[in-house]
Amino acid sequence: MRVAVVMGSKSDLAKVEPAITLLKSFNVAVDVRILSAHRTPVELTNFINETKVNGTEAIIAAAGMAAALPGVVASQTIIPVIGLPISGSVLDGMDALYSIVQMPSGIPVATVAINGSKNAAYLALQIIAINNKDVREKLLKDRLENAEKVLEANEEVITKY
Amino acid sequence: MRVAVVMGSKSDLAKVEPAITLLKSFNVAVDVRILSAHRTPVELTNFINETKVNGTEAIIAAAGMAAALPGVVASQTIIPVIGLPISGSVLDGMDALYSIVQMPSGIPVATVAINGSKNAAYLALQIIAINNKDVREKLLKDRLENAEKVLEANEEVITKY
Amino acid sequence: MRVAVVMGSKSDLAKVEPAITLLKSFNVAVDVRILSAHRTPVELTNFINETKVNGTEAIIAAAGMAAALPGVVASQTIIPVIGLPISGSVLDGMDALYSIVQMPSGIPVATVAINGSKNAAYLALQIIAINNKDVREKLLKDRLENAEKVLEANEEVITKY
Amino acid sequence: MRVAVVMGSKSDLAKVEPAITLLKSFNVAVDVRILSAHRTPVELTNFINETKVNGTEAIIAAAGMAAALPGVVASQTIIPVIGLPISGSVLDGMDALYSIVQMPSGIPVATVAINGSKNAAYLALQIIAINNKDVREKLLKDRLENAEKVLEANEEVITKY
Amino acid sequence: MRVAVVMGSKSDLAKVEPAITLLKSFNVAVDVRILSAHRTPVELTNFINETKVNGTEAIIAAAGMAAALPGVVASQTIIPVIGLPISGSVLDGMDALYSIVQMPSGIPVATVAINGSKNAAYLALQIIAINNKDVREKLLKDRLENAEKVLEANEEVITKY
Amino acid sequence: MRVAVVMGSKSDLAKVEPAITLLKSFNVAVDVRILSAHRTPVELTNFINETKVNGTEAIIAAAGMAAALPGVVASQTIIPVIGLPISGSVLDGMDALYSIVQMPSGIPVATVAINGSKNAAYLALQIIAINNKDVREKLLKDRLENAEKVLEANEEVITKY
Amino acid sequence: MRVAVVMGSKSDLAKVEPAITLLKSFNVAVDVRILSAHRTPVELTNFINETKVNGTEAIIAAAGMAAALPGVVASQTIIPVIGLPISGSVLDGMDALYSIVQMPSGIPVATVAINGSKNAAYLALQIIAINNKDVREKLLKDRLENAEKVLEANEEVITKY
Amino acid sequence: MRVAVVMGSKSDLAKVEPAITLLKSFNVAVDVRILSAHRTPVELTNFINETKVNGTEAIIAAAGMAAALPGVVASQTIIPVIGLPISGSVLDGMDALYSIVQMPSGIPVATVAINGSKNAAYLALQIIAINNKDVREKLLKDRLENAEKVLEANEEVITKY
Repeated sequence: MRVAVVMGSKSDLAKVEPAITLLKSFNVAVDVRILSAHRTPVELTNFINETKVNGTEAIIAAAGMAAALPGVVASQTIIPVIGLPISGSVLDGMDALYSIVQMPSGIPVATVAINGSKNAAYLALQIIAINNKDVREKLLKDRLENAEKVLEANEEVITKY
Repeated sequence: MRVAVVMGSKSDLAKVEPAITLLKSFNVAVDVRILSAHRTPVELTNFINETKVNGTEAIIAAAGMAAALPGVVASQTIIPVIGLPISGSVLDGMDALYSIVQMPSGIPVATVAINGSKNAAYLALQIIAINNKDVREKLLKDRLENAEKVLEANEEVITKY
Repeated sequence: MRVAVVMGSKSDLAKVEPAITLLKSFNVAVDVRILSAHRTPVELTNFINETKVNGTEAIIAAAGMAAALPGVVASQTIIPVIGLPISGSVLDGMDALYSIVQMPSGIPVATVAINGSKNAAYLALQIIAINNKDVREKLLKDRLENAEKVLEANEEVITKY
Repeated sequence: MRVAVVMGSKSDLAKVEPAITLLKSFNVAVDVRILSAHRTPVELTNFINETKVNGTEAIIAAAGMAAALPGVVASQTIIPVIGLPISGSVLDGMDALYSIVQMPSGIPVATVAINGSKNAAYLALQIIAINNKDVREKLLKDRLENAEKVLEANEEVITKY
Repeated sequence: MRVAVVMGSKSDLAKVEPAITLLKSFNVAVDVRILSAHRTPVELTNFINETKVNGTEAIIAAAGMAAALPGVVASQTIIPVIGLPISGSVLDGMDALYSIVQMPSGIPVATVAINGSKNAAYLALQIIAINNKDVREKLLKDRLENAEKVLEANEEVITKY
Repeated sequence: MRVAVVMGSKSDLAKVEPAITLLKSFNVAVDVRILSAHRTPVELTNFINETKVNGTEAIIAAAGMAAALPGVVASQTIIPVIGLPISGSVLDGMDALYSIVQMPSGIPVATVAINGSKNAAYLALQIIAINNKDVREKLLKDRLENAEKVLEANEEVITKY
Repeated sequence: MRVAVVMGSKSDLAKVEPAITLLKSFNVAVDVRILSAHRTPVELTNFINETKVNGTEAIIAAAGMAAALPGVVASQTIIPVIGLPISGSVLDGMDALYSIVQMPSGIPVATVAINGSKNAAYLALQIIAINNKDVREKLLKDRLENAEKVLEANEEVITKY
Repeated sequence: MRVAVVMGSKSDLAKVEPAITLLKSFNVAVDVRILSAHRTPVELTNFINETKVNGTEAIIAAAGMAAALPGVVASQTIIPVIGLPISGSVLDGMDALYSIVQMPSGIPVATVAINGSKNAAYLALQIIAINNKDVREKLLKDRLENAEKVLEANEEVITKY
């Protein structure tokens, strides 16, 4: 199980980190890269080419502002690319959202919420889970635990009011 | 190979149809449903439950306006759900886009462009392709053909000017 | 007199609390719940079913981001549902507003302002007041008091300038 | 059973009409008025005063652009006011939506979707239904019929693909 | 020379104050009021009626959110009404701007920038200046002084770089 | 009584014309000009200078897109400038609205609704009316007539339903 | 004198054509290409490399939706790249505008108005003009002619009213 | 090598400064001015006229809110004008972006990102580089260094995870 996580700038790292942590907690091998579609296109292509032969099942691409990275990655592979818009400008990630989700026909990017780092990881895990019973079960358990947390909060609130 | 395509209203069908056609051209079995998260939740749950046991590898959920369908589907399964925002109101699908992409942590929806029907299908195919060499090769061929069309248009335009 | 107040996440509580306080000051019984349309749909349905038989006259449903909760609640009952968009993301509640107000035909949600917690409660009280003279009189008195506060501020400002 | 439907301009009538038709189909007495918060405030107040003594249980107020009508009506009564934003300008009703939904504390307007005429009526009916078993049953039947229509469309689509 | 300054809520005062100060520095009599279109309509009408007979030449009306105040004032007088949108909600005054500027035909509101308090006052002064040579000269002098400040900053910056 | 109406492009004329017609119906002398802040700044300045000595009491400046015209006019005179945003691009006049209303401190533009041509004229008339009893009375009569039209529509609608 | 004009899709051609025509009317050699950053990256790079050695002084890059093309071109050359957002989706080019203008530091794209084809060409011509007296004079003459057209329209309108 | 940098207000200086620093690091002579299109139009014109005869190759014009400055500068010269939108209001620079980028045909402004000060300078440098081998080489070196920084961050991140 292997997922690539690539972001365009070091400044995105803090917002991307929850995805990495989540993936690792599922024992997924995570290849983290800071590579820019605009500044280091050759190294980016090299890295995408690596993912084609090392069993990578999904690529999370995070970017802010004009956010070309997810689309450029998606254009070079048919491995599913998950686009993670980052709120890196005064426009609060609205620019990144549009740049990532409005892809032209033929090159899809699976877009998640602005700064929705954990959901980018969950989506990768769900893709892996299609053919991996362990991850499937772990995901189902995780959902139960998340539901449990809601129900605990619910109990608290019932007690409180 | 099986993909479910569910939409909330009959009026979405024309905009969803290109996804169905594309999936079928890849010999994917497509289960098309018109089921509403709000109006027919029980039938929707029944259908989602069917997808869990019939080998469905991705679910495309299309909706306009408040567009709760993709999120509600995603909450009931760990099969990857692809959200397709439809421009069904005066807000041109901006409402649907926000409603679909801004999912809370734990329940991701892989969102594509407003009315991006074909990309919803391509994304499903790329997910299938991870473990299916035939689809992988067909997708790569399809990309080459799409590139070819661009290059043909390029030749025309070079001749013209 | 009974009003249900349900929110999707513990993090919404601080913004919802003014509604609870206001309802209680009118001696309305308030059933507060943290239940998620996506994470705990069964418990949510159970709670909605309770409201059908315990005399609940309005349900306030608060949610941020994709904010499916109010619509999902509304789809399971004909008790009036009041939707309260919460500013829980970088989009400042605009996402929640669209997700809540743009409901499809047949399943209305009575939407109030982003973070407009008190107005959600006032709306519930006005619905109760239709058949409850006490609440009606208390609401009218409350309006007079609110007007009084404006007039007091007005006096201050006249004195000041 | 009595509902008032007031709009600010004759040009809104076509978009408001589905609400009137729906209310009448439930045997609700409907008082339709074209009265402007800005142009005919006295007549508007007179009409609001009538609603206080003739058993009106909800007031639907429709308006486009600056859309002050619903708020002005709401400020003069504690009968629940349902705000219906109309797409009457180049801004496609976004201006009306903000003007109607963002009410200050103490004067709620129950806002529905832009041009969501039928939902304005449904909301009024649900408010009436709280104390009216007939309307309650009719609403539940109506929901079943709406669900039935979805299921019929579903059957068609299953047959087609 | 007399200008009325009315705002809907005490919380707007800090943002409105620069207008009052500027008007007073031109020796304009300023009647400041906190009066709400929704909460104190009668007192508001009384105040508007006073302005009709006391020589008021312009009314500045400031409001946030649904911001009905400027339009309601404008509907009750033909004295020019200057609308000042206040950023009083999570929507940063965009809601107030739309609510104030998008007035229906026949009832204009002269809208200035969000939180553009000083420009509201300048506009009132320019209206007064049409028939007041003193104010005219003072305004022209003020413009020269403002230009002077820009030129001083320009000198600084030329020296600096 | 004299009002200047200036627009940046011939293509704006159809949307500006209702303002001219309305002003003329009040026997106001109207100087109509097509002059561009960007393309004909000298002629624009010449025209503004004329307005300073020919008794012009207000200048209506209409423009679309970047819409610099109203602000540039306002910067060269202390005669009140009324800004009329025109929907001349794919952004439906939102660009023009922001460009016109968000003026820096010291140079106000009295902004009216997008394509709100008649209100631009009404605002000019209200400014004239401050010192002109005839226009004042005519404006009040006009408001009564507008109210009358609403009431006639109201009668029709009462009869109809 | 040589300018490259590249667009991502054949469907952009009609909106880009005015730029080509304008450039040719200045006797600029125009290399028109339809090449996609996503679909034909290699051919795009080849074309960009050609521009580096054939005297190209500016590259106009037009694209709609996610609009990665201008940025990707800009990342591969230091020839000035002019970004032309095309209104190719339901979002009316707002998506393309954000994707093109919000470039990260180091890779600028000189963005013009949505569908502002002629201005893209004018900008290229102004860049050429820095070192080309003929183009400079022709541009100045063109501006005079454009001003003349405004003044002719102005004469017409003066005569008409 | 000479570039002019003009801004409308002293308050813009901090956001503009990175452009000045970057230009100077390329040994470009930088003429910095604080001059307003609205407040000091004569001095602005004088400065623009200076740029026409002192070898200025590009003018960076920065402004917030209604942001007329870049367009007004562009209308008075055919030297390329680079527009830099500044986030100087509650609208976060969206107002400035629209005001700067949506220029009418014939008067282009090369717009960069909101607060994209460095890219404004890079764009000026790229324009200079067309005919200046030294700047060309320095820009290419700068790009390599920027790429290097990305790759260093990449190394760090590879080591870290």
